[in-house]
Amino acid sequence: MPEKLQQNMSTDALLQQVEALQKRVKVFEGEHEKLVTLLKVTRTIATELNLDKLLKLIMDEVRDALKADRCTVFLIDEDRHELWSKVAHGVQPGEIRFPLEKGIAGYVATTGRVLNIPDCYADSRFNPEIDRQTGYHTRCMLTFPMRNKRGEIIGVFQVLNKKGGVFTRQDEEILDAISIISASQIENAQLYEEQERTFESFVETLASTIDARDPLTAGHSRRIMLYADEIARLAGFSAEKRRVLRRAALLHDIGKIGVRENVLTKESRLTPEEYEHIKSHVVITRTILSKIHFSGLNKEIPDIASTHHEKVDGTGYPEGLRGEQIPEGGRILAIADVFDAMTSHRHYRDRMDMQKVLALFLHDEGKKYDTRFLKIFLEIPLKRLLQIMEGENRPFLPAEDLEKLGEFTFRDLANILLAGHRGVRPEFVRIFEKYYYGEPQDK
Amino acid sequence: MPEKLQQNMSTDALLQQVEALQKRVKVFEGEHEKLVTLLKVTRTIATELNLDKLLKLIMDEVRDALKADRCTVFLIDEDRHELWSKVAHGVQPGEIRFPLEKGIAGYVATTGRVLNIPDCYADSRFNPEIDRQTGYHTRCMLTFPMRNKRGEIIGVFQVLNKKGGVFTRQDEEILDAISIISASQIENAQLYEEQERTFESFVETLASTIDARDPLTAGHSRRIMLYADEIARLAGFSAEKRRVLRRAALLHDIGKIGVRENVLTKESRLTPEEYEHIKSHVVITRTILSKIHFSGLNKEIPDIASTHHEKVDGTGYPEGLRGEQIPEGGRILAIADVFDAMTSHRHYRDRMDMQKVLALFLHDEGKKYDTRFLKIFLEIPLKRLLQIMEGENRPFLPAEDLEKLGEFTFRDLANILLAGHRGVRPEFVRIFEKYYYGEPQDK
Repeated sequence: MPEKLQQNMSTDALLQQVEALQKRVKVFEGEHEKLVTLLKVTRTIATELNLDKLLKLIMDEVRDALKADRCTVFLIDEDRHELWSKVAHGVQPGEIRFPLEKGIAGYVATTGRVLNIPDCYADSRFNPEIDRQTGYHTRCMLTFPMRNKRGEIIGVFQVLNKKGGVFTRQDEEILDAISIISASQIENAQLYEEQERTFESFVETLASTIDARDPLTAGHSRRIMLYADEIARLAGFSAEKRRVLRRAALLHDIGKIGVRENVLTKESRLTPEEYEHIKSHVVITRTILSKIHFSGLNKEIPDIASTHHEKVDGTGYPEGLRGEQIPEGGRILAIADVFDAMTSHRHYRDRMDMQKVLALFLHDEGKKYDTRFLKIFLEIPLKRLLQIMEGENRPFLPAEDLEKLGEFTFRDLANILLAGHRGVRPEFVRIFEKYYYGEPQDK
Repeated sequence: MPEKLQQNMSTDALLQQVEALQKRVKVFEGEHEKLVTLLKVTRTIATELNLDKLLKLIMDEVRDALKADRCTVFLIDEDRHELWSKVAHGVQPGEIRFPLEKGIAGYVATTGRVLNIPDCYADSRFNPEIDRQTGYHTRCMLTFPMRNKRGEIIGVFQVLNKKGGVFTRQDEEILDAISIISASQIENAQLYEEQERTFESFVETLASTIDARDPLTAGHSRRIMLYADEIARLAGFSAEKRRVLRRAALLHDIGKIGVRENVLTKESRLTPEEYEHIKSHVVITRTILSKIHFSGLNKEIPDIASTHHEKVDGTGYPEGLRGEQIPEGGRILAIADVFDAMTSHRHYRDRMDMQKVLALFLHDEGKKYDTRFLKIFLEIPLKRLLQIMEGENRPFLPAEDLEKLGEFTFRDLANILLAGHRGVRPEFVRIFEKYYYGEPQDK
């Protein structure tokens, strides 16, 4: 029995045992703190698949775990042979990029060595230029490679200014443990985002290809998407609801794949049969989109995309739905679609007079168009409206003209144009009209 | 100084201290083991985004961590109100599904209570029926809810037969810790797979829509995909390379969106200009696919898809590439595409005589078609070839006929047909021809 044994032990032997046990407890304590930190980090980051948010989470967790003032994660961009970071503590949000080998981060990223610099200004490897630019004072700095499961370096942690001291061996061990878990989740997020980008770019390419079958509707789906997204933004839709609406907008005319070209691009008036054939495109849109396996909120895409020709008074097609029978997204697309049709160049006419466009919309408020979303549509900043309208043709409107449009909204323009006095027009109206109708010399 | 103090302590006091420290070490040891197990599990599962593989990994890790004989993870399918599992230790692979409330797993999934049953056959909640069916003997069983970060139950762990005993409180604690991490990674994998399914179904729907513009090419892209995938499988391509090739196959004709319908569906012979216009579809395929943000191996898709009309002797279009200048995938698609064109019903003719198809292919081996892949194409089991050819029209070929086709390959058919003796034909040839040319009464 150990108790018996101990009673026969000398005081010296007992003291030695106490010391050994105390040492053991101390090792466990250190180890335990490390593991608990690690688990906390793991749980915090494990479900975040949005790369920006994930990087922010990791940086916050590392900063707290190491009791530091700041932490930045730089990731390696193999294709461009660069290190980059999107967000950093105490720095304006925005992407930072530099050559893969540059500076301390570059050294650690390429060699895999750890650099623990207790006094930066006494170390020739430290470049004080950045401190001079930002006004920050870097005292000590730990730069550590981030390795994935396969041992490959995918980036570095750079941790600044340990509170009340310098970075220790224990800090390095904590980072070492956080490294694999961070790298795993970053790779998951990257895969997820890559996949999403593939899908988004596919939908966008497809939409523009379909628009391009008729040269005069080029860019239509993209503009619809941008108008609809502005309405959704001003209506306070969540990021996810906005994404769903944007996808539905890009896909709203996919059914045109099934419409005969000679009808689609006919320059003269359509016969009643041809008009019916064109109308069938929304039904085909629904048929096509219904075959796609959408998940979550995306399940609403077929419904939203295929109701863009419904009208709130029930006079639309294909179903003749009324009011709230039409999904919100469909009601928004209806406004965006008609607006783009009126304000684009078409086969048989120029852009419609903006006064007439506004009069038609306001006449049909609450009849054809949802009152709430039409009101929100008029709140779009004029600057943004013009940028979307001109789109790819004029990607960069002159800054001086944009400035003159200031904070005026579409409603401000409407108020002037519908007041009817064609005499002295405010400058913002003249600027808008210069682009909308084209410069006099362009005509 | 503590050392000084200890030297003045009585033996009794020292003994008490030793005891206290020993207790402390013991607690740490238990805690430490739990944390280390948890980290091991976390690292193992953190990068797996394939749901089937992930579930297998989790089950293996839990079984080992708890020193049990078996572990199954059941997940909740909200839409179908069911519990399901795809793989389980000691059971044939395949999906198991049952109503959400059923059995012990259902009880735990719906109530969130833990069920630790030390002696199953003495417990009325245990249903011995499954043991009777599988021949397994369940002694003890721990069923534990799997909760995500938000505390929602997404499934249950069911662990069987602890080695040398029953499941303890410590086992439950380990499962509790593994639960969140498992749930996080399962949700990541589900999101990833959903997104992938969306993309795949989108590509497939689009391909079939484009094929359907011309009723007589309906199903073409899908068949190309299936033929190409058979060749890739027999050539030993990796799962990822096969997936890339399947996508390229589905997308190979996407450029036809840009081809005029009157040319696409013309029933009479094409004029040279019309033929040139049709040929432009591969260039348009490349233009469209090049705009898509593909990642990883998928970056090869535009190249593979747009070289399906190149020939290894340089007589193809649009580039006139030769041999290995054409990507492997393009060389495979070339075979699949021409084969499907010859063996499908077209505007101006019936299916081509199979003897002629084979003669043409073999005549052009090494000239138009890659020798290696053509040889592999002939190794496709005849059964599979027929299933792809008949496809959507006859999704279920009669089992008795399939059986008669046995293990014969396309090469076996070729050997008979090209030998020229039109006398007594083996049964498998007659079966094949019955479908290929249609039943006499069908004619």
